[in-house]
Amino acid sequence: MSKIFAFSIRKDEEPYLKEWAAAHPDVEVDYTDQLLTPDTAALAKGADGVVVYQQLDYTPETLQALADQGITKMSLRNVGVDNIDMAKAKELGFEITNVPVYSPNAIAEHAVIQTARVLRQAKRMDEKMAHGDLRWAPTIGREVRDQTVGVIGTGHIGRVFMQIMEGFGAKVITYDVRKKPELEEKGYYVDSLDDLYKQADVVSLHIPATKSNYHMIDAEVIAKMKDDAVLVNVSRGPLVDTAAVAKALDDGKLFGFVMDTYEDEVGVFNEDWTDKDFPDPLLKDLIDRPNVLVTPHTAFYTTHAVRNMVVKAFDNNLALVEGQEPDTPVEVG
Amino acid sequence: MSKIFAFSIRKDEEPYLKEWAAAHPDVEVDYTDQLLTPDTAALAKGADGVVVYQQLDYTPETLQALADQGITKMSLRNVGVDNIDMAKAKELGFEITNVPVYSPNAIAEHAVIQTARVLRQAKRMDEKMAHGDLRWAPTIGREVRDQTVGVIGTGHIGRVFMQIMEGFGAKVITYDVRKKPELEEKGYYVDSLDDLYKQADVVSLHIPATKSNYHMIDAEVIAKMKDDAVLVNVSRGPLVDTAAVAKALDDGKLFGFVMDTYEDEVGVFNEDWTDKDFPDPLLKDLIDRPNVLVTPHTAFYTTHAVRNMVVKAFDNNLALVEGQEPDTPVEVG
Ligand SMILES: NC(=O)c1ccc[n+]([C@@H]2O[C@H](COP(=O)([O-])OP(=O)(O)OC[C@H]3O[C@@H](n4cnc5c(N)ncnc54)[C@H](O)[C@@H]3O)[C@@H](O)[C@H]2O)c1
Ligand SMILES: NC(=O)c1ccc[n+]([C@@H]2O[C@H](COP(=O)([O-])OP(=O)(O)OC[C@H]3O[C@@H](n4cnc5c(N)ncnc54)[C@H](O)[C@@H]3O)[C@@H](O)[C@H]2O)c1
Repeated sequence: MSKIFAFSIRKDEEPYLKEWAAAHPDVEVDYTDQLLTPDTAALAKGADGVVVYQQLDYTPETLQALADQGITKMSLRNVGVDNIDMAKAKELGFEITNVPVYSPNAIAEHAVIQTARVLRQAKRMDEKMAHGDLRWAPTIGREVRDQTVGVIGTGHIGRVFMQIMEGFGAKVITYDVRKKPELEEKGYYVDSLDDLYKQADVVSLHIPATKSNYHMIDAEVIAKMKDDAVLVNVSRGPLVDTAAVAKALDDGKLFGFVMDTYEDEVGVFNEDWTDKDFPDPLLKDLIDRPNVLVTPHTAFYTTHAVRNMVVKAFDNNLALVEGQEPDTPVEVG
Repeated sequence: MSKIFAFSIRKDEEPYLKEWAAAHPDVEVDYTDQLLTPDTAALAKGADGVVVYQQLDYTPETLQALADQGITKMSLRNVGVDNIDMAKAKELGFEITNVPVYSPNAIAEHAVIQTARVLRQAKRMDEKMAHGDLRWAPTIGREVRDQTVGVIGTGHIGRVFMQIMEGFGAKVITYDVRKKPELEEKGYYVDSLDDLYKQADVVSLHIPATKSNYHMIDAEVIAKMKDDAVLVNVSRGPLVDTAAVAKALDDGKLFGFVMDTYEDEVGVFNEDWTDKDFPDPLLKDLIDRPNVLVTPHTAFYTTHAVRNMVVKAFDNNLALVEGQEPDTPVEVG
């Protein structure tokens, strides 16, 4: 009987782990809520493979501790592999998998909801409600259907975002460095980013961050946008010059800003700063603005996504353990 | 040259009034921000018709004051005519119009956005953000696409609500006392309300309030719903037994509640209670709950709707003034 051991299983992951285990009575499944370290590696004793997910580095010592027990099949429940010491993994003969796509809808839905809230001035209305001011005027909304929505990047997430926006009745235009034929046929693409900036009431980014697109949304680009445009970044922080956005909000050029990813998020997001000095004044300023909606890289965080992360990681790990080709292997080295 | 005079024009209505006036250079348009009363009626002196919108009663004295100046053509910018003394209006020979449909999307979009926020636990996350708690777990979201959405009432608003929910990828089921053939063909209708309650993760009301459906959503009906259902009422307060909903939220039966209309809203909504004793403890309790989103009957309040209310009221009034058939006359008497 094969055995798979999972590290750092959160409460919200447990049901899906149990679901997978129930569907695989021929596999022994065990788990801990602890992170994988040189010390905790021993918890996996007797396992044929491990399922993992953590920000903490997979150091040479950690990998060695697993290998010492004969475990070299490791399946990540997330995408990113930057925190794995790949040289050591290669040396020890590790086979690794990840889950590159777990729920584009989780991110696309979040982006749409937050955009609609900004258009609706929902944060202002919520604050009025909380303080007992139940007058509706002048907190008037803009309907989503009246907007031209400019989508930059028509990959997994961008396409779902488009579909939801069209359900609202919005006009969707897009830009991508690699046009998808089925979208091109339907006439979604504009010829250039400048065309998109000129026409769009909402500009939403759904592309990866690279060296060449660092701060692609800066003061100069914002100046090209329509007055009262809404900027949406649920993709990657470095795509946006955040200080330039704050300035454009001050100037009344932008109507609002949706931000789930922030260029300086590392070490700040996913921490509890209650009763501590908040470390980032620009971020604090954005969080406090009535026309800005900040979330700490949570767009992915849905039951659907978490289920997929758990189930797909276990599927991958079982394939490795059984000597079959996993769905989404990671190149080791 | 005809002259139309408008009462109680708000700042957000002004642009649309001016747009209409510019498109009708042959009509003299004038207006005030004051309500129509026996005293202010004189402001309309010389006008052929008036455009109005207010909660304040159109009393016999008010109507008489208009008639004394020869004005008996009155166009409401809203739907409701309960506050017009119809007997007096008839006696004086008034011709009246209203705007029964100004933007179903305004209300449907609001309902969808708020539903999605409840599913996402967005209020909890917002509160964490505001206090500097930037950890995402355990504030996990449910995706809209995973829900079976039960729509009660497939009229103007219900149908737009359905379309938006389908854009998200949700499964939509509906119930209506008068089935629409085009929806029936597509298999949207369940046979009974009980069937809908049994299957729906989201139950959303889009029907008028009548004597026979008073408190149609009560403890007994809530018990028939799925565990962790979300209830949505942006239609009419009396449809819902609010105390029963609060109890079901306490019990963890309901996942959340969206409320834009409240059975005891008259005299409470659209008032400023800041620094005053809040008059309704049940309402306050709902406002403060992390899984309840209350708005004070603002679902209709969008630029699109306001434009339509103004433009359609003026169109109607011009028709009356010119002796033509207005689009949406109101029966006087
Ligand atoms: N906020 C979150 O929780 C979260 C979660 C997952 C992914 N993301 C981010 O969302 C983004 C999109 O993800 P995806 O799964 O849709 O990716 P994808 O690879 O499916 O699609 C990306 C698209 O962008 C296009 N593209 C790349 N560079 C471009 C550029 N400079 N200009 C225009 N188009 C460009 C590609 O051709 C592709 O069509 C990624 O940056 C990803 O990191 C965020
Ligand atoms: N929150 C707001 O700002 C706001 C604004 C406008 C309208 N509304 C409310 O929204 C509701 C729907 O408006 P609409 O324009 O879609 O109306 P509509 O007349 O177009 O549609 C109502 C539908 O409900 C059906 N119906 C009536 N009674 C029913 C019952 N007991 N059970 C099942 N179906 C029933 C009718 O057959 C019809 O199809 C109304 O109550 C209206 O007052 C709210």
